[in-house]
Amino acid sequence: MEKIVNVSNEETLIIHLRIDWDRIMINIFHYLNNSIRQLTIKEFNQFLRQPDGYVWVDMENPQEAEEETLLISLLDYHPLAIEDCQSGKEEEGHLPKVEDFDDYLFIIFNPVESILFEENGRKKMNIKTSQLSAFLSKTVLVTHHYKEQRSISYAVQMVLKNPMTLGKGPDFLFHLIIDQIVDNYTPILDTLDSAIDDMEKEVFHSPTQQSMVEILNMKRNIMTIRRVAVYQREMLNRLSRGEFSLITAEETFYYRNVYDHLVRMSDLADSYRDMVAGLLDAYLSVTSNRLNQVMKVLTIISTIFLPLSFITGFFGMNFRVIPLADMEWGIGIATLFMLTVALIMLWVFKRNKWL
Amino acid sequence: MEKIVNVSNEETLIIHLRIDWDRIMINIFHYLNNSIRQLTIKEFNQFLRQPDGYVWVDMENPQEAEEETLLISLLDYHPLAIEDCQSGKEEEGHLPKVEDFDDYLFIIFNPVESILFEENGRKKMNIKTSQLSAFLSKTVLVTHHYKEQRSISYAVQMVLKNPMTLGKGPDFLFHLIIDQIVDNYTPILDTLDSAIDDMEKEVFHSPTQQSMVEILNMKRNIMTIRRVAVYQREMLNRLSRGEFSLITAEETFYYRNVYDHLVRMSDLADSYRDMVAGLLDAYLSVTSNRLNQVMKVLTIISTIFLPLSFITGFFGMNFRVIPLADMEWGIGIATLFMLTVALIMLWVFKRNKWL
Amino acid sequence: MEKIVNVSNEETLIIHLRIDWDRIMINIFHYLNNSIRQLTIKEFNQFLRQPDGYVWVDMENPQEAEEETLLISLLDYHPLAIEDCQSGKEEEGHLPKVEDFDDYLFIIFNPVESILFEENGRKKMNIKTSQLSAFLSKTVLVTHHYKEQRSISYAVQMVLKNPMTLGKGPDFLFHLIIDQIVDNYTPILDTLDSAIDDMEKEVFHSPTQQSMVEILNMKRNIMTIRRVAVYQREMLNRLSRGEFSLITAEETFYYRNVYDHLVRMSDLADSYRDMVAGLLDAYLSVTSNRLNQVMKVLTIISTIFLPLSFITGFFGMNFRVIPLADMEWGIGIATLFMLTVALIMLWVFKRNKWL
Amino acid sequence: MEKIVNVSNEETLIIHLRIDWDRIMINIFHYLNNSIRQLTIKEFNQFLRQPDGYVWVDMENPQEAEEETLLISLLDYHPLAIEDCQSGKEEEGHLPKVEDFDDYLFIIFNPVESILFEENGRKKMNIKTSQLSAFLSKTVLVTHHYKEQRSISYAVQMVLKNPMTLGKGPDFLFHLIIDQIVDNYTPILDTLDSAIDDMEKEVFHSPTQQSMVEILNMKRNIMTIRRVAVYQREMLNRLSRGEFSLITAEETFYYRNVYDHLVRMSDLADSYRDMVAGLLDAYLSVTSNRLNQVMKVLTIISTIFLPLSFITGFFGMNFRVIPLADMEWGIGIATLFMLTVALIMLWVFKRNKWL
Amino acid sequence: MEKIVNVSNEETLIIHLRIDWDRIMINIFHYLNNSIRQLTIKEFNQFLRQPDGYVWVDMENPQEAEEETLLISLLDYHPLAIEDCQSGKEEEGHLPKVEDFDDYLFIIFNPVESILFEENGRKKMNIKTSQLSAFLSKTVLVTHHYKEQRSISYAVQMVLKNPMTLGKGPDFLFHLIIDQIVDNYTPILDTLDSAIDDMEKEVFHSPTQQSMVEILNMKRNIMTIRRVAVYQREMLNRLSRGEFSLITAEETFYYRNVYDHLVRMSDLADSYRDMVAGLLDAYLSVTSNRLNQVMKVLTIISTIFLPLSFITGFFGMNFRVIPLADMEWGIGIATLFMLTVALIMLWVFKRNKWL
Repeated sequence: MEKIVNVSNEETLIIHLRIDWDRIMINIFHYLNNSIRQLTIKEFNQFLRQPDGYVWVDMENPQEAEEETLLISLLDYHPLAIEDCQSGKEEEGHLPKVEDFDDYLFIIFNPVESILFEENGRKKMNIKTSQLSAFLSKTVLVTHHYKEQRSISYAVQMVLKNPMTLGKGPDFLFHLIIDQIVDNYTPILDTLDSAIDDMEKEVFHSPTQQSMVEILNMKRNIMTIRRVAVYQREMLNRLSRGEFSLITAEETFYYRNVYDHLVRMSDLADSYRDMVAGLLDAYLSVTSNRLNQVMKVLTIISTIFLPLSFITGFFGMNFRVIPLADMEWGIGIATLFMLTVALIMLWVFKRNKWL
Repeated sequence: MEKIVNVSNEETLIIHLRIDWDRIMINIFHYLNNSIRQLTIKEFNQFLRQPDGYVWVDMENPQEAEEETLLISLLDYHPLAIEDCQSGKEEEGHLPKVEDFDDYLFIIFNPVESILFEENGRKKMNIKTSQLSAFLSKTVLVTHHYKEQRSISYAVQMVLKNPMTLGKGPDFLFHLIIDQIVDNYTPILDTLDSAIDDMEKEVFHSPTQQSMVEILNMKRNIMTIRRVAVYQREMLNRLSRGEFSLITAEETFYYRNVYDHLVRMSDLADSYRDMVAGLLDAYLSVTSNRLNQVMKVLTIISTIFLPLSFITGFFGMNFRVIPLADMEWGIGIATLFMLTVALIMLWVFKRNKWL
Repeated sequence: MEKIVNVSNEETLIIHLRIDWDRIMINIFHYLNNSIRQLTIKEFNQFLRQPDGYVWVDMENPQEAEEETLLISLLDYHPLAIEDCQSGKEEEGHLPKVEDFDDYLFIIFNPVESILFEENGRKKMNIKTSQLSAFLSKTVLVTHHYKEQRSISYAVQMVLKNPMTLGKGPDFLFHLIIDQIVDNYTPILDTLDSAIDDMEKEVFHSPTQQSMVEILNMKRNIMTIRRVAVYQREMLNRLSRGEFSLITAEETFYYRNVYDHLVRMSDLADSYRDMVAGLLDAYLSVTSNRLNQVMKVLTIISTIFLPLSFITGFFGMNFRVIPLADMEWGIGIATLFMLTVALIMLWVFKRNKWL
Repeated sequence: MEKIVNVSNEETLIIHLRIDWDRIMINIFHYLNNSIRQLTIKEFNQFLRQPDGYVWVDMENPQEAEEETLLISLLDYHPLAIEDCQSGKEEEGHLPKVEDFDDYLFIIFNPVESILFEENGRKKMNIKTSQLSAFLSKTVLVTHHYKEQRSISYAVQMVLKNPMTLGKGPDFLFHLIIDQIVDNYTPILDTLDSAIDDMEKEVFHSPTQQSMVEILNMKRNIMTIRRVAVYQREMLNRLSRGEFSLITAEETFYYRNVYDHLVRMSDLADSYRDMVAGLLDAYLSVTSNRLNQVMKVLTIISTIFLPLSFITGFFGMNFRVIPLADMEWGIGIATLFMLTVALIMLWVFKRNKWL
Repeated sequence: MEKIVNVSNEETLIIHLRIDWDRIMINIFHYLNNSIRQLTIKEFNQFLRQPDGYVWVDMENPQEAEEETLLISLLDYHPLAIEDCQSGKEEEGHLPKVEDFDDYLFIIFNPVESILFEENGRKKMNIKTSQLSAFLSKTVLVTHHYKEQRSISYAVQMVLKNPMTLGKGPDFLFHLIIDQIVDNYTPILDTLDSAIDDMEKEVFHSPTQQSMVEILNMKRNIMTIRRVAVYQREMLNRLSRGEFSLITAEETFYYRNVYDHLVRMSDLADSYRDMVAGLLDAYLSVTSNRLNQVMKVLTIISTIFLPLSFITGFFGMNFRVIPLADMEWGIGIATLFMLTVALIMLWVFKRNKWL
């Protein structure tokens, strides 16, 4: 971090960051008079003293020293909020929330990503949540995340292409980012949907123990996405009903729009959950149907051959006098009798619809 | 509709629409002095400048250009609302909602239609939702939908037959349309009801794996209709309790009426859901009863013939001295003994109520 | 209906009604100065112009024309309320509700009746709801129903025996009627209770597929009564907490009392539902226990006779030299050996508590 | 109680009551100047005219005539409240409730008692609720019950031992009584707890059909106690949050305390319910495990002896030429072969962990 | 307790306590002018008369006499609160709660500890709750517990290392303690998480009856932690939304932070509960799959050998004339036929995917 201290010429700072720490990026976009310019940290400091226009700071995978410089020294955010940002390093990140610190809102959102992999020759999907933290004030929007976020890349392109994206204020830009995050849920839900359809076919045609493993995995994925959608839905409900003065009245419609999308998501997740519960019922019923099939085969075989074996046993007894035994056609008559018994049995099974 | 074709001057637009895009229709009904007249878009534009009477605009399967002309240029509705309209192109449409834009209410309703088809020689029903969007203001009602809606056709007939249907104001006409939509749920629920009854008989008399598939399908249909009913019930609760100033106090009774119908629908859906859950229980219990039957047959056959076979085996041993073997009536005595054993077994089964 | 128009002498109207249309009855009771008198429709019309005392109008199975005369022409009730009254013709009637039309309350209540019948030699009960609609104003109570109602007959007797029953005002009389309706639930719940007890014995002693059918039927009945109780409980909660000015403060205690009864009903229905859920669990467990029993018998028989048959088979082989075969006591020794094997098997079963 | 007998003048009524109706007791305790005195009904009547100090009237199993004298003539309580008191004669009594009649609160509480009995050589417990009604006013507390109540006996002892128990006012005394009732739940819950523990052992070691009966009985008991606890918890929540002016601010802490105990009770009941649900799952899984065991034994026996019997059958065929048959060691070789087959089978079972 | 009375020199009190009663400790920390000093009870008494700075009193496993001296004589806390403290002696302690006594808040928190042990050669965990009671006023924080608490030891270290920990006021110190308690849940939840993962593997690979016992135990643990988290979450919600004036506005952020952690905990507990429910489903399905496997083996063996045995029985019959019997290659032909039958059977099984 000494490098920041050493930087004399501000213009090189950003480049410097890019060159030295490779995956680490801090971008500061400044909107003024319908154009966008990238600021150095020094320029950003000047902006903060005399705010003019709007600024968006995006911190991707920042070092702790950078977090200290920007979030504490320059922007003076609450230490607890910064601590919450840093829980984004953990596997699932902090749950979605919004907190009002008068001057700024601190918001955590949970983007979702699906990880596709193969296990036992079967395509599987795991749904993972990550964390995007944001500080939203009148003139500045700070976004903070450790993993690369598609919604942020999209927003960067939008801002560079159309300065007014930032020019409508940080609250408008932030709505765009979270709307993008929520839009990214759709393909995941579609994948889940078709996975459920495939599984239904599998369950009814060739269920294995792997099907059960997979159903439980689906259930877990659905519960993950449902949980995230429900928390964020409640949060957007608060953002959109004008509870926070930092979001202007005309923006609330846009937040309401994101809210509607999340209602749809949680509604879909609910119906998928019902469908997966149906799959479990189906799985168990198919399994017990198969047992019934197996038992029927066993019973049919036994019911035909046990009596027949008894008859052969009967004529196999070593009595001196055995009926039919000395007749030339004795064995023929016995065989005929056995055939009759077998046919009667088969007819009984037929009548009971076991065949 | 020919009237539109006859319109000679002013507007080639409508004719254009009719000729080129065939299935597309925009109807503008104007109520004034107890009569109904169809307006061209130009006339509608004049009406908007000096509103007199009431206007109902119905857009069926409009092109994006038409949406732009009418909803944006002329009526200046919020872009987010128009975007929500357009999600009616997607399979299930947007979830029901109501949004207050001060000058107008934007309302989405979900008509439901049942699709009957045959699969594996079995009649099946799928329930699909579509989307009807509406903009309701003091003098204008705009309805917007991509699929043909029975409720709209009904409303057109009503308006043409009785001008006062529109003459009581857009809020009264809109109540008629949604009441019609809700009424259309009834035959679907009745079909579901008798399907459940049929399935109950099937489950108790000849359950197959197809029954299970069908029960799960029913459950899905019921959940779809329930979800739609619950969302719309909540929406109508808001519309009927006077939350929105655009719906006059005396109209709220009518909306309350639609609310009551939806309460009934969701109540029915709840009880159907319980009944389908009962069907699942019944299916599993019938399956396990059948298994018990099969096992009993197997056990009866084995319990009778295994001991008998042992006896024949006994007399089939190659010992020099075998009791009874040299007697002339030996085999008769042995047979009698075997008969006795079999009869005792049968009596035991009888006593245990296995037969 | 022309007959009513033709009636010249009012006094004969009621009699006329009773004579001609048989099942149709409209009774108008008028309380004044501590006595009750029946009014003709004409007198009732006069009363409405100069109200003095209280009036109770009971319409049993009215014709549409009568409904028009009384409810619309004379009393000027809201068309939607009258429409709701008429849904009492449908099988289950309208769900319970209360609606405030300022001058009068419109209330729907669901009396419940049990229909006893026999199916497959088994006593069964079906619970059906019907509909009682009421209009409650300062001076007039109108009750409207298509089916005969025990609660109404009871109220008629009370009014004729003790004029003060009506003399305390329509709200007091109405409380009496609904209290009576709720009291009529008790014997039905008692029947359900003892049916559940009987079923528990049946399930544990001789469960058949019919038991399952009957349990599902019970569940349906309980859900019906529970639903009705819950809706009416919520309604009485509103009536008893002074939300409606037409029910005087001192009457609310009486409505609170009916509310308490309904709380008790829904509480009982809840516990019956739990008990029926327990019956289902019990049924499945008993079924699977029976399967275990059957399997044990099969296994015991097989485990004893398969080894024995093997032994007989062993000595039945056609080898030249067979041990024991030429000894005089050979078969005795072999039999002893077989007996030993059988006894060991039985001892093993004994030890494992299979017998 | 002898003190009542000693009362010489004024009132033969009480003595009368004691002599004639034996089990009936009405005690009237009067607190004045830090001492307790028992009043006759006449003295109580005088007190009511000029209240000085506090009075507690306890009615145990009163006759209707006594109820009329005391509750109606002297204290002028609402007839509906008295009717509710009298529903204490029914098996389970009225559900807990509190009603505010301005001058006095009418409160119903449900003490719980456990009835222990033996059935099929198994200790069982049934939980029954009874009813304690109370009228609480500024100066008088009336408690009314048909069954003897431990909480009342305890309160009588407390009052006689320490006059201040009543001297702190009727609301303090009443809190003591209900606290005592709630404390009496604890031993019942403990009994349930250890019964669940015992049942868990039974289910995993020697489950029988009786276990299932007992689990369902436990569930019913838990639901009874849970229901009572939940209703009373809600009631005490209202009593403790200062909703009723008759309970002084400093007393609310004491009521809050009782509330806390009830929260604990309902929390315990919830966790017991979960544990009993777990027992049901365990029971079913153990049953199906046993079935698996039985089936394995059957399969092992069959898999060993069916092939062996085939071999003996093979050498038992009556062909002229049979391999080995004429060799002296033929049967030895065959036996060896059979042994080998049996050992291979056993080894396969061993490898599959079936033994 | 006489010893306290005997103490003449206050300075030795604390030491005295440590020496004589060993496990009992009362520590009184006094913050003044940025330094921490331990007080004797006498000094604490002086402080209470003239409060200057802040005091934290920690009572670990106090004797009743000590509780009386400190909590009643000196601090004059409400007897009910002290009674609640003392329920910490019971196994699970009092449920979490917060009560406002104007001058001070009385708060109960439930730390959780996991007890690891071995049973039947299997590592097991039991989760136990204990009780930490606290009295929080403007200048004094009293913590009271019978068991040693890690969170308290941690707080003692913090206070001694950094006086400002107490210098920011009792509410800040208390937040630190409960935050520490909540942090201690994390390793327990992690252990649960990995236990669930292990169990999933076990269930799918080698499920035994012990697995079922363990799953039920897990469920119980999860429900315990969930219950505690939910109660404390609700409590912290109240503490953090500024309901209590004793917690300053700037501290509420810290309490909000603890609230967030508890939301996370209860969310995790919910998802673990779902996963354990999935384990139960999986266990039952695996068990029934195994049954299917066993049945298939039985059926295959029977289906092959029953027909074969019949054939040997056929040629074992004692008829004078038996086909093939006198031919030299008769037994060869018969064997070939039997082989063919067996192969056909195997081929059928193969085709049906039973092998």
